[in-house]
Order: sequence, then C-alpha cells, then structure tokens
Amino acid sequence: MNTDEFRRTGHQVIDWIADYMESGYTGRVSPDTTPGELLKLLPESPPRQGEPAEALLEDFHQLILPRMTHWNDPRFFGYFPCNHSRPGILGDLLSAGLGVNAMSWATSPAATELEIRMMQWLGRIIGLDWPGCIQDTASTATLCALLAARERLNPMNEDGAYGKRRFVCYTSDQAHSSVLKAVRIAGVGGRYLRLIPSDSEFAMRPYALEEAIQQDLQKGLQPGFVTATVGTTSSTGFDPVARLAPICRHHGLWLHVDAAMAGSAAILPEMGWLMEGVDQADSYLFNPHKWLFTNFDCTAFFCRRPRHLKQALAIQPEYLKTRHDAAAENFRDWSLQLGRRFRALKLWFVLRCYGVEGLQQKLRLHLKMARWFAEQVKACPQTSLLLEPRLNTVCFHLDSDERSEALLQSVNQSGQAFLTHTRLNDRYIIRASFGQTHSRVKHAEDLWRLIEERL
Amino acid sequence: MNTDEFRRTGHQVIDWIADYMESGYTGRVSPDTTPGELLKLLPESPPRQGEPAEALLEDFHQLILPRMTHWNDPRFFGYFPCNHSRPGILGDLLSAGLGVNAMSWATSPAATELEIRMMQWLGRIIGLDWPGCIQDTASTATLCALLAARERLNPMNEDGAYGKRRFVCYTSDQAHSSVLKAVRIAGVGGRYLRLIPSDSEFAMRPYALEEAIQQDLQKGLQPGFVTATVGTTSSTGFDPVARLAPICRHHGLWLHVDAAMAGSAAILPEMGWLMEGVDQADSYLFNPHKWLFTNFDCTAFFCRRPRHLKQALAIQPEYLKTRHDAAAENFRDWSLQLGRRFRALKLWFVLRCYGVEGLQQKLRLHLKMARWFAEQVKACPQTSLLLEPRLNTVCFHLDSDERSEALLQSVNQSGQAFLTHTRLNDRYIIRASFGQTHSRVKHAEDLWRLIEERL
Repeated sequence: MNTDEFRRTGHQVIDWIADYMESGYTGRVSPDTTPGELLKLLPESPPRQGEPAEALLEDFHQLILPRMTHWNDPRFFGYFPCNHSRPGILGDLLSAGLGVNAMSWATSPAATELEIRMMQWLGRIIGLDWPGCIQDTASTATLCALLAARERLNPMNEDGAYGKRRFVCYTSDQAHSSVLKAVRIAGVGGRYLRLIPSDSEFAMRPYALEEAIQQDLQKGLQPGFVTATVGTTSSTGFDPVARLAPICRHHGLWLHVDAAMAGSAAILPEMGWLMEGVDQADSYLFNPHKWLFTNFDCTAFFCRRPRHLKQALAIQPEYLKTRHDAAAENFRDWSLQLGRRFRALKLWFVLRCYGVEGLQQKLRLHLKMARWFAEQVKACPQTSLLLEPRLNTVCFHLDSDERSEALLQSVNQSGQAFLTHTRLNDRYIIRASFGQTHSRVKHAEDLWRLIEERL
Repeated sequence: MNTDEFRRTGHQVIDWIADYMESGYTGRVSPDTTPGELLKLLPESPPRQGEPAEALLEDFHQLILPRMTHWNDPRFFGYFPCNHSRPGILGDLLSAGLGVNAMSWATSPAATELEIRMMQWLGRIIGLDWPGCIQDTASTATLCALLAARERLNPMNEDGAYGKRRFVCYTSDQAHSSVLKAVRIAGVGGRYLRLIPSDSEFAMRPYALEEAIQQDLQKGLQPGFVTATVGTTSSTGFDPVARLAPICRHHGLWLHVDAAMAGSAAILPEMGWLMEGVDQADSYLFNPHKWLFTNFDCTAFFCRRPRHLKQALAIQPEYLKTRHDAAAENFRDWSLQLGRRFRALKLWFVLRCYGVEGLQQKLRLHLKMARWFAEQVKACPQTSLLLEPRLNTVCFHLDSDERSEALLQSVNQSGQAFLTHTRLNDRYIIRASFGQTHSRVKHAEDLWRLIEERL
C-alpha cells in the first residue's frame, strides 16, 4: 500500500466511521450467525501477493460487519457500555500513526508525561489526588493491586506467593470474576479468597468481613487484601467503602476499590456519594473505556502510595537502563507488561473535546433514560423491578425464569435490541444497561416497545 | 465534535500520518527534553467546555511531537523494531470505529473467528499448526504459558502457587526480564527461577539445564516450566530448542519458546532453522508488533494443547454465560484480561495488503542492512563485532566501556540516530537493530557515517 492508497483508503475509512456513528447501523445489532460460519468463508492461507485495499474494505463490509455484535449501537443494552467517541478514535489513530512504545520515560517522554497529567485530570474531576497510570483492563489493575498488597506484607519476598502464613483475600459474593482470576493468577489459590455475603441491595456486609478476618487470624493465616466494588456487574450494588476502610486499616489490609463502570459517574457533583471513603483506600480503578467515551482499552488505576506496586513489578535489566531512571517515572514498573501503547493521547482528546460539562451532560442523559425505563417496568403489571436503579443499569424480571429468558431471547432474536442477563436472588434477571455515546431517549422508548410487544 | 468536524479532522490526521511515514520526520529522532518539561506546559485541570479539534492538533504538533522518541523513524536503531504499517494502521482504525469487546464469541463472532483464522495463517507461514490467540505482549503470553504449566502439574489446584512440592522454573541467563516478572507475578517466587548458564554464543547449555533439573528433583522440588529464547534481547542468541525439548519431555516439564522479535524471520524459508524443535515444545510466541508491520500490540501466542491454559484462566459467572459457550471459542479463557480488542483486523489488513512475499522482501532487506553494517564494523580498526549477526541486530564495542558509552551518547545527542546498549561478556555493548518499515540501505549508511565521524 503506497502513500496515495493509504490517503485515499484512510479517508474512506474515516467517512465510513462517521456514517456508522452518525446514522447508527441499520443492520442487526447482534448477528444471526453460528459458530464456524465466518471461518468457512475465509481462505485457509494468506495470499502470496499483496492485495489492494479495496478488496479488504469490500470483505470487511460483506463478511465481517454482518457478523459483529455492535457494541456502540444505541440499540445495544447488554453487559455494560464500552463506549467510544469521535475524539477518542482520532486520538487513538494518532497513537497508531506514531507507533511508539511507552515502556519507559526515555522511550517516549511525552507519552509518559501526558499520562501522568491525564491521570491527574481524572483524579481532579472525581476528587482523588493519588498518582496513577493507565492499565488495559480492570482485571489487570486488580491483579496489580493484589501484587502490591502482597509485596507490602512480605517485602521483597522472592520466596513465592506467601510468606510463612497463607495470604488471604476478601471480596463480596457480588464481586466481578476478575477478582477470583487475579487470586488464581497470583498463586494465592482460590481457596484463600473469601466471598463475603452481601445484603439485600447487593452490598458487602461490613460485620461479615470483620468476622471473616477474625476467623482467618485465629487460624494463623495472613489476611492481606480486600476488593470492594462500587457498582457491581450484575446489579450495580455498592459496597460501603467508608465502613470497610476502618476495618482494613485496623487489621493492616490493603483496600482496593473496583469502580470499573460506575466510577465514571463520579464526575457528576450530585453523585459524590460514589467516592465516599475511597480516600481511605489504597488503590482505586475505573474504566473510561466503559462509560467515559474513551475507546477500549483505558482503565484508570490510582494507587495511593505506589512504592509497593513498583517494588513488586520493577525489573531493571541492563538493556532497559537509561540515564533518566532516577528522575523519571517508568510506567513499565506499574504494569504486568513491559510494552505500553500511548493511550493517554485518546484520553486527552476526549477530555478536551468534550470538556467536563460535555461529559456530565451525556452521563445525565443516560441516568435519565435508566430512570424512565425503570418507571415503565414498575408501571407494567407483568414486569417487576429488582431494585431501584441508582445508576444506569435496570434489573427486572417476569413472573418466571422461563418467561424472563424467553423474553430476552425474543428481543435479541429481533436484531433490534440487545440485552443480557444475570442471576440474582436465585432468579433469572434481565439487565438493561444505558450508556451509549449516541443514545437518545427515543432508544429507551424503542426498547420498551420491543419488550411490551412480547409480554 | 460533530460528524463534520470528525470527517475534516480525520482526513487531516490521515494526511499527517501519510506524510509522517512517507517523508520521515525531519526533527530529532529522540527528543532533547528533561523529565517534567512537558508537565509544566500542560494545564493542571481539564477544560470545563469542549475545545475544537484544531486546538488539539495544534498542541499535538507543538507540545507532544517534539518530545517523542520516534520509534518508527528509519533513524531509530534502538531496542528492537516496533514497526507499524499503513494497512495495520487502517485495520486498527476500523477496529476503533467498531469499538467492540471481543471477550467471548457471542460478543463479537467475527472478531473471534477472524482471530482464529489469522493465527492459522501465521502458523501456516512459520510451519506450526497449533491453535493460538492474540495477546497484548510477550510478557503476558509467557505468564499465560507459566500458568498453564502450573495447572498441568497441579490440576484444578485452588490451593495456590504450588502443590506439595515447590514449583521450579528454568530459563537462560540471557532470557528477557519478562520471565522473572511472570515468575514473580504467579507467586512462584524469584528464588525458584533457575538462570541456566549460556555458551559463548549466548545460547542455553542443555547439559546445565539437565543438571539443574536433577538437583531440584533431589531436593524434593517440582521442576515444571522452561522458557527457551529464540533470539535473546541483548544479542539475538538462540537456545537450542531441539536439544532442550527431549530433556523437558523426559522430566515432564512444559517447554515455552519466546521468539518475540526473531520469530517474524521464520516466514523466510531460508530461516527454517529458527523453528527447529519448536514442534516439540508446548507453547510458542512471537510479536508481529515487533518485526511484522502490525502496530503494537499484537503478540501471536500458540499453545499445542490449550486445555490446561483454559482450565487455569476460565471463570464463568452467570452474566457472561451465552448459549454458544459449548460450541464456540471464548478467547477470554485464554487471557489474563476479560476485555479484548478486535486486534485480528489489523493483522488481516497487514497479511493481505503485503502478501507473504511482500513481507519476506522487507525482512530480507533488513537482514541485508545488518550484514552490511556488521561488515563495516569488522573492517574498521576501532570497532569490534561481538559476534556475527544471524539476524537483524548488530552488537559491537570500542576498546573501552567509556569510549563505547561516549560514542553511543554522542550519536544519540545528535538527534540523527538512536541506539541503545546492553552488557555482555562484562562489556558495554552498543546494539544496532534494523527493522523499520520504511528503512532503506541509505539509513544504515547514514548511521555508519555518524559513527565513523565520532571515532
């Protein structure tokens, strides 16, 4: 592909993205395909000779697009938002154009310093003045927090996953699967993760945490790490961080707060309660790639005192040494990976092009849509609301699991909306998550109509 | 940013990238900046109101660009290539435009199936018919291999990093720092990583590996995991995989092969020796984001039998269950992270737009440049070649460490080339790595002239 072809095709791709985002996609929001269908249509070997870009774009439209689930379509209400935006896409494109590796300050000074500043900007608008870095996902950031916690209790421990006593982790029975994954990866062992019971609003019970820690201490184990969730995946439950923090402090446990999706709402002054107690924790994460218009991946990971994290992850072979290592931040020491993309660029584009007020306006619309939708659920005799939505996710069900599941399948099969489910209180629960970049109230109305037609 | 502004700015960004790649950048290849300089120029808070894209682009050119290290400039000879390409950038742009999360088959069927096929394409051109997936970096893939190895020995072990006996890992004293990082993260403990001595060509000594395993068995430990390196970071040394494999098989150890940079050269038939013995290993990785024109990040990770890997990493909470889980591949079960970008798209663009022969042609040019450069080093009385380059990295030195370091600093201070160093045989070694997308023989000549002028 020469420069002219790149220019021409690049303009075409930009124009296609503009249309895709503007008018929405008119095909199915989730595809009607079965495993293996695309595989059969793709050649088994790469071509010997290069092909023109036109052939690629043609195949992209014919083969790929109809077999995608369109996460950024306003008709997508599944899982959680994974929203992107025009400025985020352009920031990412510039980053791809530069093609740098931001592993150390010296390998990309501007990338490191823009990342430091963007984390300060995010911290400022949510009210947290800790240092931080961008991680790829919440899973990775939670694992990093766990490694820091382990390092703090067993400093410079080269002896393995635990010192003389077994290291124990705690989270609620509503926590994300990434907590168990981190516990397994770090070699702590799933058996040493305590799932603390949650209350009727899916929040961790502080007394139950205290009790579990006491029991482990009596067994001679070493309680070390608590993950509290601000906005659980299933139901947007909120662990009471301000009540958990004193317990963690008293027993010397590292308190990590996972606000992966809900954390974006902390940019709204009226949602200040989301951050209650967080300043007494040790680490905090939220995902601008979920609900803050910064295309995936971009997890904001804050660490009150990153010394233990860096001690756990820093390795300095000769070939990575630079003369700036003493004076500068090398973010590879904050990360599982050595190589790092220049992700701060897309965040910079998003924060500056929207401005704080532009972001707030979008989020308030999503909250309004969720409240309106919950009202419909409550007003309808056949649908039951699981709990009042405090943010953007509405959980509801019909009078039996079979009917709930059939409704969800039928909506999804229409191709005109996409919903996902969970189980709570031993029931099949339908979730509707609001938070698309180009959502309008109309889209919540359309979803409700699709549901009503099927009741 | 509305659609018109996105279109206009998008075209500008494409045009800028076209120029940046075509004519090369005329500023310094590595910046003349000090830690904190950019930070002082960036406001401490994000704007309240949105700003126009023009302001962003202006600041990108004024503030960011002069403070970058330009990894894709043909004058960059540092570390390793991290090369990108026009088709790779466009594939990545389309992926950003879609903004999907490819965690499960059902969440992006086409992304999963294109990834399966792209891994088969890569496998076919390097001669490996194992299943595989795309990981972000070699660090992550090596950690995944270690977790699979641990799982195979201690199946379904929820009890932590090791069973009754301590799990031991092996690699050479030339291995990448990511091996020690993986050992630490997984909770094995750095003390249980044996650094096997390498020979005069920086290759692991098979007898020394056998001996170390024997010693650990006698101590009652559990030897479990060997990482062999095909192309070490410092000097491109090659561990003799075909001789290590029988030792690993005999003792039941998992053999992982890290060919992060060198592995791209396996697409050349004349480099078939790179893959000798790999078919007897358990897992293999190389980085198309290093030397195969696929913008960072894109690590190709192959796993002969992924059962243990998936057993170690699969967690199935209710909210992630889909009706296709039994029939389809969910790549989240191969990964540390839950969320996954649609990275197969850029690889598809690269493989099809270049064609296999187009890629081979590029790599042969890089190898020719390295050989030419090594000849200059040998012919010059003041420079000594550390060893004959077998691939694209040339290691050399002057008659004292002080003079070698001064030469490197002086070349880098010129801003007209960028080199990095390592230590080998107790000497300060200058490395010149060849592999830029738009490199021409002229660039090797320019580098040699810059060096000669300083001798």
